[in-house]
Amino acid sequence: MRQKAVFYHAGCPVCVEAERTLADALDPNRYDVEIVHLGEQRGRLDEAAAAGVKSVPAMVISGVPMHVNFGASLADLR
Amino acid sequence: MRQKAVFYHAGCPVCVEAERTLADALDPNRYDVEIVHLGEQRGRLDEAAAAGVKSVPAMVISGVPMHVNFGASLADLR
Repeated sequence: MRQKAVFYHAGCPVCVEAERTLADALDPNRYDVEIVHLGEQRGRLDEAAAAGVKSVPAMVISGVPMHVNFGASLADLR
Repeated sequence: MRQKAVFYHAGCPVCVEAERTLADALDPNRYDVEIVHLGEQRGRLDEAAAAGVKSVPAMVISGVPMHVNFGASLADLR
């Protein structure tokens, strides 16, 4: 069964690099990767926070939050 | 052509979770993933630092360093 991975970002340069390098590297046979721009989709900030995301870029893989480098804190996006 | 990805860790709980979740999620058709325990292979600390790694766990994908959450700084492993 394919698992869900959500990549949260805010359009920052650090985010773009992480998206190109990491989100794109996941095995497409095992993961459905969704890309969410929190600057444009503020309605999903609570969902990201509930998953444990504290800064972007971050990827939640099978429910586990992974913060990748540092672009911006979630609080600054609200 | 398959690309190289190196996952650096130090055996810490944060490292283990990142290894299970992230390093394992990469597409095996496109990436050769090598796992390096820097606590046991101190001879590779310089290589990691040269790639831009400042803390573990971290994954260098196609030459780009990605710090994943925070387990320990590289300086503390020397």
